[in-house]
Amino acid sequence: MKTVSFANIKPGGFWGDRIELNRTSTIPSVYDRFTETGRFRSFRCDWKEGMPDKPHFFWDSDIAKWIEAAAYSIELHPDPRLEEIIDGVVDLIEKNQQEDGYFNVYFTVVDPENARFKVRDWHELYCAGHLLEAAIAYYKATGKEKFLNLMRRYLELIERVFAVEHSAEFDTPGHEEIELALIKLYDLTGEERYLKLCSYFIETRGTSEKDKNIPSWAKPEYYQSDVPVREFTAAEGHSVRALYLYCGIADLAARTGDESLMNVCRRMFDDIAGRQMYVTGGVGAGPSGERFTEGYVLPNDLAYAETCASIALALFARRMSAIEPDSKYADVAETAMYNGSLSGVSLDGKSFFYMNPLEINLERRRVYEEYYTFDKTYKPITQRVEVFDCSCCPPNVARFIASIGDFLYSYDDDTVYIHHFMRSEAEFDGVSIIQQTEYPNEGEVRITVRGMKGKKLAVRIPGWCGFVSLGGEKLNAPVKRGYAFVDVSQDEETFDFWFEMKPQFISCNPAVEFNLDRVCLRRGPLVYCAESVLNGGVNLNNILLDISGRVGLEFCEETGTYAALADAFEELPRDELYFGCEDIKVKKTKIKMLPYFAFANHGESDMEVWMRKGKGNA
Amino acid sequence: MKTVSFANIKPGGFWGDRIELNRTSTIPSVYDRFTETGRFRSFRCDWKEGMPDKPHFFWDSDIAKWIEAAAYSIELHPDPRLEEIIDGVVDLIEKNQQEDGYFNVYFTVVDPENARFKVRDWHELYCAGHLLEAAIAYYKATGKEKFLNLMRRYLELIERVFAVEHSAEFDTPGHEEIELALIKLYDLTGEERYLKLCSYFIETRGTSEKDKNIPSWAKPEYYQSDVPVREFTAAEGHSVRALYLYCGIADLAARTGDESLMNVCRRMFDDIAGRQMYVTGGVGAGPSGERFTEGYVLPNDLAYAETCASIALALFARRMSAIEPDSKYADVAETAMYNGSLSGVSLDGKSFFYMNPLEINLERRRVYEEYYTFDKTYKPITQRVEVFDCSCCPPNVARFIASIGDFLYSYDDDTVYIHHFMRSEAEFDGVSIIQQTEYPNEGEVRITVRGMKGKKLAVRIPGWCGFVSLGGEKLNAPVKRGYAFVDVSQDEETFDFWFEMKPQFISCNPAVEFNLDRVCLRRGPLVYCAESVLNGGVNLNNILLDISGRVGLEFCEETGTYAALADAFEELPRDELYFGCEDIKVKKTKIKMLPYFAFANHGESDMEVWMRKGKGNA
Repeated sequence: MKTVSFANIKPGGFWGDRIELNRTSTIPSVYDRFTETGRFRSFRCDWKEGMPDKPHFFWDSDIAKWIEAAAYSIELHPDPRLEEIIDGVVDLIEKNQQEDGYFNVYFTVVDPENARFKVRDWHELYCAGHLLEAAIAYYKATGKEKFLNLMRRYLELIERVFAVEHSAEFDTPGHEEIELALIKLYDLTGEERYLKLCSYFIETRGTSEKDKNIPSWAKPEYYQSDVPVREFTAAEGHSVRALYLYCGIADLAARTGDESLMNVCRRMFDDIAGRQMYVTGGVGAGPSGERFTEGYVLPNDLAYAETCASIALALFARRMSAIEPDSKYADVAETAMYNGSLSGVSLDGKSFFYMNPLEINLERRRVYEEYYTFDKTYKPITQRVEVFDCSCCPPNVARFIASIGDFLYSYDDDTVYIHHFMRSEAEFDGVSIIQQTEYPNEGEVRITVRGMKGKKLAVRIPGWCGFVSLGGEKLNAPVKRGYAFVDVSQDEETFDFWFEMKPQFISCNPAVEFNLDRVCLRRGPLVYCAESVLNGGVNLNNILLDISGRVGLEFCEETGTYAALADAFEELPRDELYFGCEDIKVKKTKIKMLPYFAFANHGESDMEVWMRKGKGNA
Repeated sequence: MKTVSFANIKPGGFWGDRIELNRTSTIPSVYDRFTETGRFRSFRCDWKEGMPDKPHFFWDSDIAKWIEAAAYSIELHPDPRLEEIIDGVVDLIEKNQQEDGYFNVYFTVVDPENARFKVRDWHELYCAGHLLEAAIAYYKATGKEKFLNLMRRYLELIERVFAVEHSAEFDTPGHEEIELALIKLYDLTGEERYLKLCSYFIETRGTSEKDKNIPSWAKPEYYQSDVPVREFTAAEGHSVRALYLYCGIADLAARTGDESLMNVCRRMFDDIAGRQMYVTGGVGAGPSGERFTEGYVLPNDLAYAETCASIALALFARRMSAIEPDSKYADVAETAMYNGSLSGVSLDGKSFFYMNPLEINLERRRVYEEYYTFDKTYKPITQRVEVFDCSCCPPNVARFIASIGDFLYSYDDDTVYIHHFMRSEAEFDGVSIIQQTEYPNEGEVRITVRGMKGKKLAVRIPGWCGFVSLGGEKLNAPVKRGYAFVDVSQDEETFDFWFEMKPQFISCNPAVEFNLDRVCLRRGPLVYCAESVLNGGVNLNNILLDISGRVGLEFCEETGTYAALADAFEELPRDELYFGCEDIKVKKTKIKMLPYFAFANHGESDMEVWMRKGKGNA
């Protein structure tokens, strides 16, 4: 099965707006921050002790992800100024690449003693992987080969050290990422050596004695290194590392047909989607080590749910969709795309979240810090910021949005799968698909195809959708694993799908104790949240959503989506500390809710996704 | 208004059993533990560096409280062996008391450099106060004056140093206690100097420059020293210290008629009862500093709620009842007596809680410690232990139970107030009162009085009671501030009161976010709790009490009270992580609940006081 590249898709609508904002605001803004903080300058490799802006050991990856985002943007919207910046960086890489192909700013200027793969946890291969992805993206966007060739030289070193001489101090990356970059290079060049190197890293994982040399605070499972990958039973450890690895495994399995690797992917996916994922598509609940915790441990206010992890989950789910279409994959990808990933960037595109909590309660936080001495090293942020010391998320969200079109289609000789809905025009392999839709705001999707006569269109039925019509009639096409299969019988044919999109109140498995007696509001792919700042400063603790009430919708320019106005009850303040349970006093009220991705854009505020459940008279 | 001493009351029923258990089990058991740990031996004052069992700076108070408990026990039940032990301790005090009257084991043998009131936070005056209370109790129980005279000698020193020469390094106690001991001595001797010294400590508090010399981690309000006591607006700081101070203020106000001091007491009481008290009568929610927090900060699992603090609250409320009878005071005292104080000791009388949480969730605790790095220095205990390093609570609960009769009656020339109900026979000032009742299990109380012809009986109507009858008819006597006033017209007269005692589901003020959508079960003065260990290991998170269901009662020998069997719903396990809110699956079940005071007697277990609220079909 082939995947259609974003480069073949002209975006519009909701995502078209986001891509444009990404181009005009996020990419320049991240560039400015990375310039101010010395990240770009660091590629000159002239930093010396005592100078400001000491390079960090994964700044290379920050710049690489920014280049990748910029390259994607250039592909859809040529931009000589961006090319000039990237060419400048590439020149510096060329200048500072070492004799044997090695390139890493930190280990060149800060810690040359430890250069060349001496410490597993210091991200050399992770940086190499991101630089390689950037080089591939830039080559595809511009046809310029220099960056790519520099990285291929670097890969020769890596291949020799790891897979031939085994002379590094460890055998597999401490932070996975290079695996999926190698697959991209294999796909681009067709050279088996890259597939083999990827396979080497994946198959060696969990079997190496050398790899046990890790920091004392971590355990092998933190690095997905406790057992060989085929023996994985649940998603464990650092969530971004884990998910990049699963992406690499899926990529490898897709190219080798290795069913036992596919089974690993299936187990990991089901574990995450069924036990470890926030309703927003956020994952990695544990702040200490930004990691997966265990099933059903999903606290809302202490959620870590790193933006990068939600993006990585979407990337993993996208790969699974393309290998074995089942709507459960695209459902998860969609949830992450519209909620836990997109929440990582502000509505103006300029500031970012690293953590994406599902609840902010400023008063509780104050009280706990005052009286209950949480570990003070963990201080969840409540407002977006422009740059972090550890700033992996801003360029990651930029490259994710720029290439969002990658999620839409995959195809084989007989069938084109439509995984996601987005106003767009696509051209690939003689096929043209136009989607006319107001998605995610409305469930109508008009799909016009050309060049598919005699083939099938497999259209995903979203998991949130209870009723689907096609051409105004209840859908009666065969549905397999959540995809409706319709025959295309004309050269140009139009299909009018309608996915009923109602506001829905969602409950959570009772094993998640934080959500007991609570519901969240979802409409289509958008999960909603309430902020006190948009509701006259109301104490959200006192609000019960009326699940038998009405949810009004009102279009909101600022978010490009509907705001919801939900019937609710407000439990009233009272004097008594304790009283008979029949005597609870409530009044009817309405609560304004915005899509989760838009929270924290109106000043510091309490916020809730999971709200108390009220019904009838409360 | 006079208070009737426990010494005038022959106890029976529920408290009679507890007093007997206290005498036969708790007092000997605490004696054994204090002997094993070297506390008794420390009074020999022969400890030297390198020896085991280094005396702690408030071991004097541990022994003093044990003596006080033993003295109370002797008063109701003579015991030559206990007298022998106490006489031995008194001989050691005599032997080791210094020339000028100073007595303190720690500062004699461990840290003589700092002896004689150099460090405010080191409890010298607190120990002196407890020794004085013990001496008074022992004198009253046996008529032996030696201990009392030794302590009066010590007080001469204290009076001179603090109130005459002002030569100590601080002006008022870091840990209050001596204030109420001085009042007891004043009441016993009639000597004004003790009242004056008490008044000095209370009036000087919050006005002294010297007192600002406190440990860096604390703030003046922790010591109730930020402002003069008359300016107190809310209960603050270390909860036992605060409440002992409020006791002292109430005692002083009662004897001087100082209305502005009474107002302080009223404000503190209303703040505590209305905003800072657990439904069990536990107070001092904050573990860091075992202190009051602020209004409505009452977490269940992280509750500190020290046994001593609940006892101190009962003592404060008892004083308020006797000054200005209002049932709100005795309601609070009763709640603390039957729940948050009594929970401090096990059913066999031998092991103890320092903290009294309202919820134990072992799994949550494990998860939080694993992933969310709470301050590891705070580890709530889940099982009672026989002795603590800081073992203030065991002897405190022993003296509290031994003298529980103190709570029952107060009187003036016209009226006898019955504050509490307890099977008992009382004789005082020519009056005899017999209570025949199965309280707290049944609401019937037959009160037979003699020697009260022409006077009034003021009988408290408990706050939990919705319907009261007298002689089989709905009560129609005048009720003032929660007391029913009935005329006694015969030499011997019997009043049959019935306080309707139904199982009740109680809700909590929504400002306490921990109890949102939760209820607790109360019947009469007893608050109930559920333990998983008594319910087949059920996950209490999944249980919803059916507030429109039935609560069965079954007498339980082990606790001397009814166990409750409450209709409930169990939310069933399911596969999906998220699902439509109408699709919650429950089954009917029943949950066994015991009175809160009896929790943690059947092995380590989850426990909940506040349970999820279910109704109708859940």
